[in-house]
Amino acid sequence: MDVSKEINRQLSILRQGTAEIVPEEDLAQKIKKSILSGKPLRVKLGLDPTAPDIHLGHTVVLHKLRQFQDLGHQVILIIGDFTGRVGDPSGRSKTRKPLTESEIRENARTYQEQIFHVLDSDKTELVYNSQWLAPLSFAEIIQLSAKYTVARMLERDDFHKRYINEEPISIHEFFYPLMQGYDSIAIEADVELGGTDQKFNLLIGRTLQREYGQEPQVAVTVPILEGLDGKQKMSKSLGNYIGITDTPKDMYGKTMSIPDNLIVRYFELVTKMPADEVMKIEEGLTREQLHPRDVKMRLAREIVTTYYDEKTAVGAEEEFKQIFRLGKLPHEIPEFSIDSDLLEEGKIWLPKLLQLANLVSSTSEARRLIKQGAVRVDGQKVESQDTEINIIDGQVIRVGKRRFLRLRK
Amino acid sequence: MDVSKEINRQLSILRQGTAEIVPEEDLAQKIKKSILSGKPLRVKLGLDPTAPDIHLGHTVVLHKLRQFQDLGHQVILIIGDFTGRVGDPSGRSKTRKPLTESEIRENARTYQEQIFHVLDSDKTELVYNSQWLAPLSFAEIIQLSAKYTVARMLERDDFHKRYINEEPISIHEFFYPLMQGYDSIAIEADVELGGTDQKFNLLIGRTLQREYGQEPQVAVTVPILEGLDGKQKMSKSLGNYIGITDTPKDMYGKTMSIPDNLIVRYFELVTKMPADEVMKIEEGLTREQLHPRDVKMRLAREIVTTYYDEKTAVGAEEEFKQIFRLGKLPHEIPEFSIDSDLLEEGKIWLPKLLQLANLVSSTSEARRLIKQGAVRVDGQKVESQDTEINIIDGQVIRVGKRRFLRLRK
Repeated sequence: MDVSKEINRQLSILRQGTAEIVPEEDLAQKIKKSILSGKPLRVKLGLDPTAPDIHLGHTVVLHKLRQFQDLGHQVILIIGDFTGRVGDPSGRSKTRKPLTESEIRENARTYQEQIFHVLDSDKTELVYNSQWLAPLSFAEIIQLSAKYTVARMLERDDFHKRYINEEPISIHEFFYPLMQGYDSIAIEADVELGGTDQKFNLLIGRTLQREYGQEPQVAVTVPILEGLDGKQKMSKSLGNYIGITDTPKDMYGKTMSIPDNLIVRYFELVTKMPADEVMKIEEGLTREQLHPRDVKMRLAREIVTTYYDEKTAVGAEEEFKQIFRLGKLPHEIPEFSIDSDLLEEGKIWLPKLLQLANLVSSTSEARRLIKQGAVRVDGQKVESQDTEINIIDGQVIRVGKRRFLRLRK
Repeated sequence: MDVSKEINRQLSILRQGTAEIVPEEDLAQKIKKSILSGKPLRVKLGLDPTAPDIHLGHTVVLHKLRQFQDLGHQVILIIGDFTGRVGDPSGRSKTRKPLTESEIRENARTYQEQIFHVLDSDKTELVYNSQWLAPLSFAEIIQLSAKYTVARMLERDDFHKRYINEEPISIHEFFYPLMQGYDSIAIEADVELGGTDQKFNLLIGRTLQREYGQEPQVAVTVPILEGLDGKQKMSKSLGNYIGITDTPKDMYGKTMSIPDNLIVRYFELVTKMPADEVMKIEEGLTREQLHPRDVKMRLAREIVTTYYDEKTAVGAEEEFKQIFRLGKLPHEIPEFSIDSDLLEEGKIWLPKLLQLANLVSSTSEARRLIKQGAVRVDGQKVESQDTEINIIDGQVIRVGKRRFLRLRK
């Protein structure tokens, strides 16, 4: 084998769609060593056990990990159960409420289910960081924190802003990046992946490994994926996301709603399509040889296939075509009948009904959608967020373009 | 008993010679509670186990503790063995080299020997903070450090200066004040004493106790004692100190060398003399009814008596009178003969000789004294720091005013 050719092959695949590789020379060096020794690189990703339901934005990094796996390397997923169990003792962060042991196990299980749609489970190790963090003694913690300075920690973007704006930063918050760095030492990571917003933390791992006499890891960052609106980052709280547990129909329909200028980016970041094929699509679009709608349908099929299968994807496509091309109601509309105890004088507040029927995740989402004019009852647009409705058998409620429900008494 | 009168009596004694009581209302409240419940206050002092040889500057705080004891309260001395054993992992501080278990025990023993010249051992508890700090888990440490913010820590004078000057502060340095604060929680301190330079740390204890649901301690700071030069603070490295293991003669003579304007301050801060008597002396000096030299001799006698006994003090006084009033050599000059193996061609470097004979603690001290013109050989001032001398039997070496040595072959 021509070693330098193989190094370049791996690098060119890994470079594709990454934001930064810091430093690339080190990655080349590590790949070389791995080729010569036959030992796969150890590629780390840290997972927060507080929010296991992942959306497409989270899979950008998973697809990059999958590329490492396809090149023969080993992925180590670290469930940050230690942090999760401690929570945020200052009580400031809602996402850092302490979790119980069983909640964490359950979240980890959910993660695995979702993640192995993208990752190769044979080349994935799953570990819990409480294994090495919980037994650390106070003396060891002092030694760890002696390796990093307050000034450098305060250079981190969010800390810097809060410090300048005189918003309180508790001392324990400095631990989280140190713990993440210590994780790299514990598993002897060669590479750590994260979003661009994680760069600072990934570099702490690098510094700490050097202090502990290890070869420092390479930080590989991937871009933050834009959401359905094409502007803000994909996030649950903004509602502009494609959840990987979404129904095939939703997944397909949501993908069809992204702006055209994101098509290539989505192919690159959240599908397994090889780089040269993506490039062909890009060319086709630029030269107007391909119609964006057709390409988007291919993208939507790819995505549904990843999380379900080809057949389901084709089915979702058929249904999508029917609704949007033919302007008809879908073949099957799910039915919902409400417990009469929840009615007051036969009526119910519409946002509440939408939530109970799982058409929305919260009444505030429902109210927002009503405000946007996206809710119809029997084809009639709902105008007021205060609307209460009588339950009429057979009535059809429609939320947005794709969510339908038939009420049953 | 008239409670409010007793509160005022205690407060007026405790106020005497303190720098600050923060807050005084709380101390009054605590004294009241103690009187009514019959439970003594728990008064804390933290000791650094790295430097056990104490000088008069350190005893200011001990005399204040003694007043608490004389008012019936309990003193808790905390040997900071945990910190001592960890040392300074960044390697920046020379005083924070890790100590062994036995060094720490030995230092603690030395402390006790020295401290109980001032403190009442019946009302003193001696504890080691490793007892409660070593078993803390990582989770508990995170909880502790969540109680304090980075910004407040950086308000501490020395941290602030270093941060502004871009000198590195390692994150572990933030632990030391937190540990000191946690000590207050562990022993349920009512009051903590320290020098004015410790105020910030004492107040952290206050904050943390409140966070842990305890009644916050009162911080009592005492002034920093000026050294023999009357200007800079008494310190070993400046050489302007009276060590409490100094010989009676040195102790007496050094006291006689302080500037007159410090006499009253020394009486107040480093003797057990009651406040009203100190006031009488102050009046006598102001009205020129007392001669400063006579008052200073009384001070010197008091100090020697504290660390030796009355008889020794009188002896030191006699000898002092003889040397300085009569201009004679003292009755007895200690003799010293040097191991001939240490000579080169019958000669030895004078600073080395002074160190071997224990006239100075280091050759650099000796060189400084030579430079100041304070070293004589047979009455002849030594001019050069490079001086080597032949050992001549009977030769008298004099360092400063009070240190003599007769060389023997």
